[in-house]
Amino acid sequence: MEQVILTNMCMVSDGCGNVLMQRRLDPNWPGLVFPGGHVEPGESFVDSVIREVREETGLTIRHPVLCGVKQFYTEEGSRYIVLLFRANEYAGELHSSAEGEALWVSRKSLDVRECAPGFELMLKVFEDDAVSEIFYDGEAHFF
Amino acid sequence: MEQVILTNMCMVSDGCGNVLMQRRLDPNWPGLVFPGGHVEPGESFVDSVIREVREETGLTIRHPVLCGVKQFYTEEGSRYIVLLFRANEYAGELHSSAEGEALWVSRKSLDVRECAPGFELMLKVFEDDAVSEIFYDGEAHFF
Repeated sequence: MEQVILTNMCMVSDGCGNVLMQRRLDPNWPGLVFPGGHVEPGESFVDSVIREVREETGLTIRHPVLCGVKQFYTEEGSRYIVLLFRANEYAGELHSSAEGEALWVSRKSLDVRECAPGFELMLKVFEDDAVSEIFYDGEAHFF
Repeated sequence: MEQVILTNMCMVSDGCGNVLMQRRLDPNWPGLVFPGGHVEPGESFVDSVIREVREETGLTIRHPVLCGVKQFYTEEGSRYIVLLFRANEYAGELHSSAEGEALWVSRKSLDVRECAPGFELMLKVFEDDAVSEIFYDGEAHFF
């Protein structure tokens, strides 16, 4: 049994080379990232990622597929888990939220210097089918 | 933040139609299942599934890939998560453990009546790339 913080993040692709991103305003982790947020108690992981993408971008994704996890321990000793999903089906109209602007970004010309710190390492788990996990313990370990 | 019990299970395939199974002796959940067990505090998920498969079957798997999750809440209100992996590379010699006999079973002729209760539902998450999650809340929900 562990104290765990459960979160999610989703790479939504439009099939034309663009990915759905959020320009986070939060000074603790600012910059471009994929949308996502916390899993609520009692909530399924898939339900949670559908809800978070909708809240942050206005789009309702369908059939998100789990593609990996990122994890680390907080200073308080809790295991912090980010469940990583991919989706390429969605409906609705794009809108931003109080957390930041929602926008489509060309994956090919994505400037990692505009991304939140460490986000480029997460991209490897989203995009490489052979990589399932990134575990931080001072440094990043890929599995 | 939630109280979470973290576990893993792995479908190891030999490339000839057989899957690695354990005939569990535990009366709480007896029958044929894939090997797996608990994630230790501080342990990565991939490390944990490699360790459990080795302890229960003698085989050291390589490159396990996360393919889904099963989850439910215990009567005490903890979220119980089983991280589901697939692997088709391994080394070592098969041996059994105190938890049960380790054996290769033909997937095609697997008799679900010999499996632990509910295991046939988990097979759907292991084998269907479009299914990432099974969430129990009295009944089973697939996502």
